Amino acid sequence: MRAALLLRCVDRPGIVAAVGAFVERTGGNIVEADQHTDAAAGLFLQRVEFDVDATAAELRRSFAPVAARFGMDWAVHDLGERDRIALLVSRQGHCLADLLGRGALGELAGEIVVVASNHETHRALTERFGVPFRHVPDRGDRAAQERELAAALDGFAPDVVVLARYMRILPPWFVARWRGRMINIHHSFLPSFAGARPYLQAHERGVKVIGATAHYVTEELDEGPIIAQQVMPVSHRDDPGRLERRGRDLEAVVLAEALRLHLEHRVIVYGRRTAVFD
Amino acid sequence: MRAALLLRCVDRPGIVAAVGAFVERTGGNIVEADQHTDAAAGLFLQRVEFDVDATAAELRRSFAPVAARFGMDWAVHDLGERDRIALLVSRQGHCLADLLGRGALGELAGEIVVVASNHETHRALTERFGVPFRHVPDRGDRAAQERELAAALDGFAPDVVVLARYMRILPPWFVARWRGRMINIHHSFLPSFAGARPYLQAHERGVKVIGATAHYVTEELDEGPIIAQQVMPVSHRDDPGRLERRGRDLEAVVLAEALRLHLEHRVIVYGRRTAVFD
Amino acid sequence: MRAALLLRCVDRPGIVAAVGAFVERTGGNIVEADQHTDAAAGLFLQRVEFDVDATAAELRRSFAPVAARFGMDWAVHDLGERDRIALLVSRQGHCLADLLGRGALGELAGEIVVVASNHETHRALTERFGVPFRHVPDRGDRAAQERELAAALDGFAPDVVVLARYMRILPPWFVARWRGRMINIHHSFLPSFAGARPYLQAHERGVKVIGATAHYVTEELDEGPIIAQQVMPVSHRDDPGRLERRGRDLEAVVLAEALRLHLEHRVIVYGRRTAVFD
Amino acid sequence: MRAALLLRCVDRPGIVAAVGAFVERTGGNIVEADQHTDAAAGLFLQRVEFDVDATAAELRRSFAPVAARFGMDWAVHDLGERDRIALLVSRQGHCLADLLGRGALGELAGEIVVVASNHETHRALTERFGVPFRHVPDRGDRAAQERELAAALDGFAPDVVVLARYMRILPPWFVARWRGRMINIHHSFLPSFAGARPYLQAHERGVKVIGATAHYVTEELDEGPIIAQQVMPVSHRDDPGRLERRGRDLEAVVLAEALRLHLEHRVIVYGRRTAVFD
Repeated sequence: MRAALLLRCVDRPGIVAAVGAFVERTGGNIVEADQHTDAAAGLFLQRVEFDVDATAAELRRSFAPVAARFGMDWAVHDLGERDRIALLVSRQGHCLADLLGRGALGELAGEIVVVASNHETHRALTERFGVPFRHVPDRGDRAAQERELAAALDGFAPDVVVLARYMRILPPWFVARWRGRMINIHHSFLPSFAGARPYLQAHERGVKVIGATAHYVTEELDEGPIIAQQVMPVSHRDDPGRLERRGRDLEAVVLAEALRLHLEHRVIVYGRRTAVFD
Repeated sequence: MRAALLLRCVDRPGIVAAVGAFVERTGGNIVEADQHTDAAAGLFLQRVEFDVDATAAELRRSFAPVAARFGMDWAVHDLGERDRIALLVSRQGHCLADLLGRGALGELAGEIVVVASNHETHRALTERFGVPFRHVPDRGDRAAQERELAAALDGFAPDVVVLARYMRILPPWFVARWRGRMINIHHSFLPSFAGARPYLQAHERGVKVIGATAHYVTEELDEGPIIAQQVMPVSHRDDPGRLERRGRDLEAVVLAEALRLHLEHRVIVYGRRTAVFD
Repeated sequence: MRAALLLRCVDRPGIVAAVGAFVERTGGNIVEADQHTDAAAGLFLQRVEFDVDATAAELRRSFAPVAARFGMDWAVHDLGERDRIALLVSRQGHCLADLLGRGALGELAGEIVVVASNHETHRALTERFGVPFRHVPDRGDRAAQERELAAALDGFAPDVVVLARYMRILPPWFVARWRGRMINIHHSFLPSFAGARPYLQAHERGVKVIGATAHYVTEELDEGPIIAQQVMPVSHRDDPGRLERRGRDLEAVVLAEALRLHLEHRVIVYGRRTAVFD
Repeated sequence: MRAALLLRCVDRPGIVAAVGAFVERTGGNIVEADQHTDAAAGLFLQRVEFDVDATAAELRRSFAPVAARFGMDWAVHDLGERDRIALLVSRQGHCLADLLGRGALGELAGEIVVVASNHETHRALTERFGVPFRHVPDRGDRAAQERELAAALDGFAPDVVVLARYMRILPPWFVARWRGRMINIHHSFLPSFAGARPYLQAHERGVKVIGATAHYVTEELDEGPIIAQQVMPVSHRDDPGRLERRGRDLEAVVLAEALRLHLEHRVIVYGRRTAVFD
């Protein structure tokens, strides 16, 4: 199988040699390897992708002593396994349509198992793709809606939750449950224009470039570790409505990119940052 | 000569026809025309560039009645006239070197008449290009330094003042004196990372794109109307030092671009925004 | 209604004034106007968008004398009318999925009335969106397939034909029939890597940037007037397979952008070039 | 000192472990490491940067057996050593001014030791920076001029030769002499618009994006391995003169970037391609 080993530890001499020796002992052949030393933080991060005749469980057993020696945070993934993906959406459907389309064409390294929403708007679009749709409206009790939403997801046992323009703030217990596995698309180039109505804010400030940001969700709104960002030039001709329209393409592409990086196990979070080994 | 007519007024029918008729009456031939209607603000903005056998003074006289009819803010410029440019700089010299180089190659539609600085650092570089250098240090009396700086500039009667990485905040009276004619380069993609040490802020936030912003200076720090912005992708590999190094190319290019747009009379400020007719 | 007037003629004084006066006579209010003078070619191009209480037919009648005076090529469009769109596709479905998704979300200023293909591959995807699918295979007689394809389109009376990764070269008579109304996406930054397998060519040449190009189809393969191009940086890590995957996002976005520009009547072709008034 | 080890060999298991073990034996600490496997070519490429208490000569001796075992092409560089840089230029001075400015500010990891040209145009600019200028005109005998130019360079023993808009084709013997150490800037996005007058070609083709390409010079004109490319969007408004002006910024930035990558020993050439470990 093809395996991905991700690790993070305090930097010191010998790590690269030890990991290289480990892969050699397994009989594996490295197809991709990338590493990063954050000198200021004294941290070493590495991702190694290798072909090997062993299971993930076997690799975990044999790597554990190496990891212990260096005090690593680490994970081994079987890249052949496909993650189960849940999508949350509100009224804006462009990211949803984009991801459903990619799923239908086999372009995602995972499977969309459910779409849940606080609105009925995109039931038809979702069901066209044979994906279950769960409508979880707010009937006046916000906490109840949040519990119901979590239960709806739980029924599908997703590995990753994607907020594909889901426009409600989720409570800390919900965020904690999906820590490191919940991705949001914010329709601005964060940290510019955090919060509501970023295109209107961008227009009022008169910026010449707009952006979109995909990030892991944390308790602090719009403050989670950034996975991917892209930008496009705009001009005075772009009123808020046109910014919104033009920005939609950015949002869909950036969110799909971030999801791909996550599904391929290319992201290591450290502090408020990510290292993306792509 | 080649003239540029810039105007701004409340939008209503007939403006385009009236301006077109004016140019026709002068015997001029339009080589470039661009306009913008800000529907939300109810504003009409236009720039018309035309070849004409008349002086700027004659054009101003003949256009005044048209402008009065529509209540326009307006200006006529002779594009053959070259503006006098003053540069302010502190210790970082890359924008200075870039602009001096462009000046020496005849690429600026204006002439650099003086470089002033609170440090001696770039005297040699400046004088190599035959440009006068004025050192105006802070001897412990900030207000005195500011007055001395203004006097140093006044001696050269500049039309435009460029803050080419001048790292001191200027007082309101100084800003007011050069309103609409003082351009600053901020080394981030504003409004992200306003204030001090933007590359450090960008690194700490873990952004995947950095930028640079050239704007007119107003009393509110880093809040003036944006003329030009550019961005580049970065990654976890870029520590603050490397962000700074990579950002320097952006800063120089964006500042030169903004200066060009200003010198060619392509910018109309309205509210906190600019329309750039390029 | 909202009207768009597009015109092209030999440049000479008085055109702008005459067009402005025309709009004023109709009682229209200009919401957007843009023009271009190609000095080398001696050509003047203009697009004026205005709100007016008149039909397109009435506007055509009243503009005809102005057009005649200046010898204009011109057109008036009612921007409220929605074009009928036909899509041609082969085995790669990402542009198709993207356009169907946009159509379903109401983001296209037109309606997808049919998808035709030389393969059955994307029947299910298409029919999910309630759009008719026509399979027109090559049974060994190329000319017959081409005639059958044209007939399949004719049944739906499309205004514009979009080659959304249709991988067969169309004969001159087919191209002539849709001149100025058939848009192709080429998966490279033309004129680099025209012809077959552009990602393989790009990899072999070792470029650091790839692109996608949307253009009107002409008799000369990959030589038609370019409407839109976009690019992205790549590196030695991107083998042909990965270039192809990364390029798909570019292709979908560029094709959708070109189609939008066409549907909004923002493109004027002149010679081998386009002026895009956006 | 800080060392860079660059290597290239047929891919097989154990290389990473062997290199890691080598660095560990030297007592070095890896600060940056990057590698690439070209699966199609069966090639493995790696760059390792490490701090070590040894000379380059000592490292070369101790690495030689490892290299021999795997049949590597390889090099060890002391990153503290500064290369000697020669610039060739013709009439366009923007790349020259940019590099001289960077040199004066200490931004180059090397020293500009001479500027040579077939024109006198930029003597003053060069000498302002205290850099020797050699005028080597063509007096009607092309071969003689080429020999004279080579001799002028030889007198300064440069490590790298930069064609900073030197507009003459150099003969094979000249190219061979500087193989892998001579960098050219071509003012287009190669392979589009190779040869003369690329901005005119770009305008005639009506492209919507232009670019600049820095590459190692080989016997085949404009066909050498590409080190860096950048692009910018353009429109129908950009006539050939304006394309040329706007492109100058791209050219200067791309050439400086390529030179930096070369001086920091971040480029490995293989076939017609480069791997750039940045």
